Amino acid sequence: MTHSSPDLLVYSNGTVRHSVILNSEVNCEVNLFNYPFAADRCPVAIQTWAIDGCGTYLVMDEVKLVDSSHGDWQTDRVSLKKQRKDRNYIMVDLHIKYINPFITLLLPSILLILADVVSFALPLGGGERNSFKVTLVLNFTMFLSILNNVLPGDSQCSPIIRTHFCVCLILLMLSMLVSLVLTRVAKDGGIIFCCWTQGSVEENTANKELKKDEETKADISVVQLNAADEHSQMVRKVVNFVDDHAAKQLESERCQNYANKLDKTFFWFYLIFGTTYFGAMTYVMVYYECKVNHFDFWY
Amino acid sequence: MTHSSPDLLVYSNGTVRHSVILNSEVNCEVNLFNYPFAADRCPVAIQTWAIDGCGTYLVMDEVKLVDSSHGDWQTDRVSLKKQRKDRNYIMVDLHIKYINPFITLLLPSILLILADVVSFALPLGGGERNSFKVTLVLNFTMFLSILNNVLPGDSQCSPIIRTHFCVCLILLMLSMLVSLVLTRVAKDGGIIFCCWTQGSVEENTANKELKKDEETKADISVVQLNAADEHSQMVRKVVNFVDDHAAKQLESERCQNYANKLDKTFFWFYLIFGTTYFGAMTYVMVYYECKVNHFDFWY
Amino acid sequence: MTHSSPDLLVYSNGTVRHSVILNSEVNCEVNLFNYPFAADRCPVAIQTWAIDGCGTYLVMDEVKLVDSSHGDWQTDRVSLKKQRKDRNYIMVDLHIKYINPFITLLLPSILLILADVVSFALPLGGGERNSFKVTLVLNFTMFLSILNNVLPGDSQCSPIIRTHFCVCLILLMLSMLVSLVLTRVAKDGGIIFCCWTQGSVEENTANKELKKDEETKADISVVQLNAADEHSQMVRKVVNFVDDHAAKQLESERCQNYANKLDKTFFWFYLIFGTTYFGAMTYVMVYYECKVNHFDFWY
Amino acid sequence: MTHSSPDLLVYSNGTVRHSVILNSEVNCEVNLFNYPFAADRCPVAIQTWAIDGCGTYLVMDEVKLVDSSHGDWQTDRVSLKKQRKDRNYIMVDLHIKYINPFITLLLPSILLILADVVSFALPLGGGERNSFKVTLVLNFTMFLSILNNVLPGDSQCSPIIRTHFCVCLILLMLSMLVSLVLTRVAKDGGIIFCCWTQGSVEENTANKELKKDEETKADISVVQLNAADEHSQMVRKVVNFVDDHAAKQLESERCQNYANKLDKTFFWFYLIFGTTYFGAMTYVMVYYECKVNHFDFWY
Amino acid sequence: MTHSSPDLLVYSNGTVRHSVILNSEVNCEVNLFNYPFAADRCPVAIQTWAIDGCGTYLVMDEVKLVDSSHGDWQTDRVSLKKQRKDRNYIMVDLHIKYINPFITLLLPSILLILADVVSFALPLGGGERNSFKVTLVLNFTMFLSILNNVLPGDSQCSPIIRTHFCVCLILLMLSMLVSLVLTRVAKDGGIIFCCWTQGSVEENTANKELKKDEETKADISVVQLNAADEHSQMVRKVVNFVDDHAAKQLESERCQNYANKLDKTFFWFYLIFGTTYFGAMTYVMVYYECKVNHFDFWY
Repeated sequence: MTHSSPDLLVYSNGTVRHSVILNSEVNCEVNLFNYPFAADRCPVAIQTWAIDGCGTYLVMDEVKLVDSSHGDWQTDRVSLKKQRKDRNYIMVDLHIKYINPFITLLLPSILLILADVVSFALPLGGGERNSFKVTLVLNFTMFLSILNNVLPGDSQCSPIIRTHFCVCLILLMLSMLVSLVLTRVAKDGGIIFCCWTQGSVEENTANKELKKDEETKADISVVQLNAADEHSQMVRKVVNFVDDHAAKQLESERCQNYANKLDKTFFWFYLIFGTTYFGAMTYVMVYYECKVNHFDFWY
Repeated sequence: MTHSSPDLLVYSNGTVRHSVILNSEVNCEVNLFNYPFAADRCPVAIQTWAIDGCGTYLVMDEVKLVDSSHGDWQTDRVSLKKQRKDRNYIMVDLHIKYINPFITLLLPSILLILADVVSFALPLGGGERNSFKVTLVLNFTMFLSILNNVLPGDSQCSPIIRTHFCVCLILLMLSMLVSLVLTRVAKDGGIIFCCWTQGSVEENTANKELKKDEETKADISVVQLNAADEHSQMVRKVVNFVDDHAAKQLESERCQNYANKLDKTFFWFYLIFGTTYFGAMTYVMVYYECKVNHFDFWY
Repeated sequence: MTHSSPDLLVYSNGTVRHSVILNSEVNCEVNLFNYPFAADRCPVAIQTWAIDGCGTYLVMDEVKLVDSSHGDWQTDRVSLKKQRKDRNYIMVDLHIKYINPFITLLLPSILLILADVVSFALPLGGGERNSFKVTLVLNFTMFLSILNNVLPGDSQCSPIIRTHFCVCLILLMLSMLVSLVLTRVAKDGGIIFCCWTQGSVEENTANKELKKDEETKADISVVQLNAADEHSQMVRKVVNFVDDHAAKQLESERCQNYANKLDKTFFWFYLIFGTTYFGAMTYVMVYYECKVNHFDFWY
Repeated sequence: MTHSSPDLLVYSNGTVRHSVILNSEVNCEVNLFNYPFAADRCPVAIQTWAIDGCGTYLVMDEVKLVDSSHGDWQTDRVSLKKQRKDRNYIMVDLHIKYINPFITLLLPSILLILADVVSFALPLGGGERNSFKVTLVLNFTMFLSILNNVLPGDSQCSPIIRTHFCVCLILLMLSMLVSLVLTRVAKDGGIIFCCWTQGSVEENTANKELKKDEETKADISVVQLNAADEHSQMVRKVVNFVDDHAAKQLESERCQNYANKLDKTFFWFYLIFGTTYFGAMTYVMVYYECKVNHFDFWY
Repeated sequence: MTHSSPDLLVYSNGTVRHSVILNSEVNCEVNLFNYPFAADRCPVAIQTWAIDGCGTYLVMDEVKLVDSSHGDWQTDRVSLKKQRKDRNYIMVDLHIKYINPFITLLLPSILLILADVVSFALPLGGGERNSFKVTLVLNFTMFLSILNNVLPGDSQCSPIIRTHFCVCLILLMLSMLVSLVLTRVAKDGGIIFCCWTQGSVEENTANKELKKDEETKADISVVQLNAADEHSQMVRKVVNFVDDHAAKQLESERCQNYANKLDKTFFWFYLIFGTTYFGAMTYVMVYYECKVNHFDFWY
């Protein structure tokens, strides 16, 4: 707080005219609960040094607001107030200009979550959906970092948007993890990672080898058969191959249908829960008011 | 605002010669509406302290412009003006050097949107297009962040480029979401996520199983048939397999054609709307002028 | 350390009343071992210049805490203490506000590691898992960079979270590398990169060519055979093709089963080791206390 | 520009010895045209205040260069010069240390463009090439951002490297867009997005359905045929399937060959143009000199 | 360099007691050759102004080290030395705290290169390896950027780690480009991009068409053949299809084997060269000492 212009003008009647320019930097804890729609008032105390009747008294006259919209904050109104006889303060009403943070933070985050919801339209098995969702999640963490650089450290009325982003990240993560697991379900029909599945796989291959051996044996034994039988034998092989293929396809189709059902259930749950949450959060962000005591420097 | 060089030269005729160097930092709200093609003028008021006939008066003579092109701004012209008898000001004409922001912001964003338009050339179903588009969208959000770091907080004449980027982001997002949905359409022929589709799927598999059972039964019953019949039975199986395959392919082809038609329709809509929008925005960005009152500090 | 307000008030009894505002910036080494749950106390020494009975003595009365929660640190308590007769200091109890770093650093890192564990649900061979894991690893290195920007340089009690992130990175990397190697195992049945595998491959193709030649010779020789033989010959070819296909599939299935078994073993090892490690690390991060001697400036 | 050390030493013969330390920060517009191989000279004017014979005159003796290589600039030589009798200046020869920007900017950008050229080795249709190229383009835009943070705002002699990077970005973008379009060509044999292609597709499917119907009719009509005919009918079906498959493959192969031809043509064009451009740009960057008038502050 | 506390204490015997606090910011060129294991000593010269016997002389007594480990540097030892009778200096021994840069820079870069080596385990043709390697390369360039922000501009003893990272980047790039080219080799059996390959492709399709025509002609001619011939004709077609398929597979297998052989050769070359390089670099980084003359300010 510096005051410039050292010249004084002394009138003949003893009054002194003194122009003072105070470039003051004020530290004011603003309620950012509703960020980026935050609006608050900030008292700027102006006091003179006067103890035991000795010193100067300040008689304030009028406050004019000049050049009110630099930077991220818009000054709405300025008014002169008193709290005690010797405690003058200028109450400054501020609100944040919400366009900038809305475009940088809110809009992309809403679009990201919308993209996450729409990404359920991608087929489960193709690998696209998972890579799509992991990209969304990782970009959302980037937004969290930007947000934390933009917002001040948390205080009494810390911005609800931080909690909101946190919940959104967990929702995105959950949706990604469910997608990962359902990819497995669509392929194997389950996610049990224990030993007997291995056994069944083993058995399966053993089974197949057995069949193979059988066939080979059959092959060997049919050598003495006549040509027609040999022919039908070979055709049977082709048929077996086709049958095998069809059976596998059927099996995998059943798994996929099961996974798709689960996927749809989760989608509806996710959509309903997400919509409800968004509504509630928007209501809180716009209407809830958090009070900050700005006069804690006057103990 | 500091003044250096403490030496005075007093001539015999009473005039005092005093060299003053004023290093002043001026806070001037510049109209950035047309950013990065912004140009504006900025008054630097120079006043002496003189109240009621007491004080010094400033007689200004000539202003010379020296070293005019440091940093991001180019000073075009400087001229001495008066608004009232005692209110001298130096009007400084500035324009932004547009090459730097053009290369960093405008050029890549134009190329990104061009890439988005051309990406419609990618086939719908292969998964390439979606990952391509999501990359574009996420990089565009990165540009939005850079833009908001470069641009000042919004004011009376906030840069139209911010709104423009915002619209571009929404366009890119829309194009991505349409791609996601059309991928689903190309696969399933619709995007209705409700229970009866599940039912139909179920029915389908049930149907197939029935047919399977039937075939197995037929298999069992044909054991007592003669060899020729058995042979033709097996061949019929292969034919069934091929038929099934062809039917599925036909079905999926129909879905794909439907999706491709929708895709083309959207592409033309997108192209026409986008081109119109770009034309209009360029016109506004170059020709529209936004007036800022630079003298609001003289209330 | 500056003191403002140059006015003194001298009472008739000789006492001097002097208001001093000290804006002091204090350099205090805080124990950040438990970051982001760090809490520490910081002594602010206030001393007057008094040597050999000459100088002023400071009699301190009362300390009031005002405006305690700006920025990242919350001031809990403030108390006046003495270490020697002339060494007054104000002990300031601080703790970090943990919500901000928790959301920016800890939460995403926990989610990343969770995603890594769940990504074992992705099938081995499809290429998805590897790209998923490499994305996770590279994002984790990004977190390491952010962490190192946020945390101060290491000192006596350097934050354990840095070591923790380092171990997590190595775990993620290990899990990725194992995935890479198992992809190879699932394809070739081994990872031995030496010359005799080349030989075997060569032999394989040589083998195949031989068989091919044989078949061609057989083809040539069967020209003089009758039509039926020719027919069965051709059918045999189709059967050979199908057999070949089946054999290859069986071979690749065996490799995949082997790789899956290894994969599951590693997964369980990874899960158990990871859980144990996380438990131990959480215990240390919350309960271990690291002592810093704050009075090393009073030698 | 501050001068320290307040002590004077007055000799008996009237000369005054005065040591002055001037810590001066000089604003000098350096020619960065050849960045990062930029080298320029910078005059530091030293003047005393002397008007009309009154004031001190500066007699300069010798300049010594001490500690010449801190930061990004290396001071080569320092020499005392005069432009007018009372205008002394110290000419400082500087050159940029090129290793740092070479490693951070030039080397990665050259490698990126090299990777783009080599990426033509990737097959057209697999989707790999496009994702590879989009990654390169987006990383190049990142380099543009870094470059613009490192370089100062453009002036008279703005660095040619900025234009160069801009051209490189456009080249990369062009190569990417051509790849996108050729992917389409490789699939469909053309890129015409209008209605009659839809028509032909429709016709195609209609055609197929007709054939299908025909076949079904044929199926129905052959019921009364004898077994042998039925058998050959079924075999004919399989043959039709195989024929269809082969015809499609031939069609797609023709499209791919056409696309590959275009791809090769573009590759050679790109390679030749790119090499020529690189040669010319390197020549300009190293040999062209851009003159800056450093004495524009002495009007 | 400021000195505070204006009070002096004059004893009766004429000695003056004066406490001076010098907060000095010292510009010292440190040898960073071995970064992040750098350690160096830095002289802080303390001189009084004394010319021709006039002025104060400084008698230094003892230096105490207090609070030695703030920030990135650890002060090891402090000692008072003299270079000439009137040139006192305090030699400060510093070393960098290597844990922070090791975790942020060295560890991830070593892991990246390890991942690059292991990524040779990925199959050549699947497209995975290339995308994996391009991700690694692009992340390594990010590390280069971080490194150059962390390290100071290069000087006499510029850090060897910068050259090291540069070589690593080139190695990674080389490995990526080789992968790209080998992908082509695995597909086409060569990388010659000239016109006669086009010719051969053309010929190939022409060949195929000829064969096709022939077949059609054959088809037409066989109409008058009897049913059995027709049947065998059709079966021959299927066999041709299978043969074609097998021949293509054999051709592509040969190409792949050739590419795999080249791949293995390159892998071993890369591994051996890389390991040798790493060993040599580690030796140089730890043992080589680069001398900086710290007294160049005393000319």
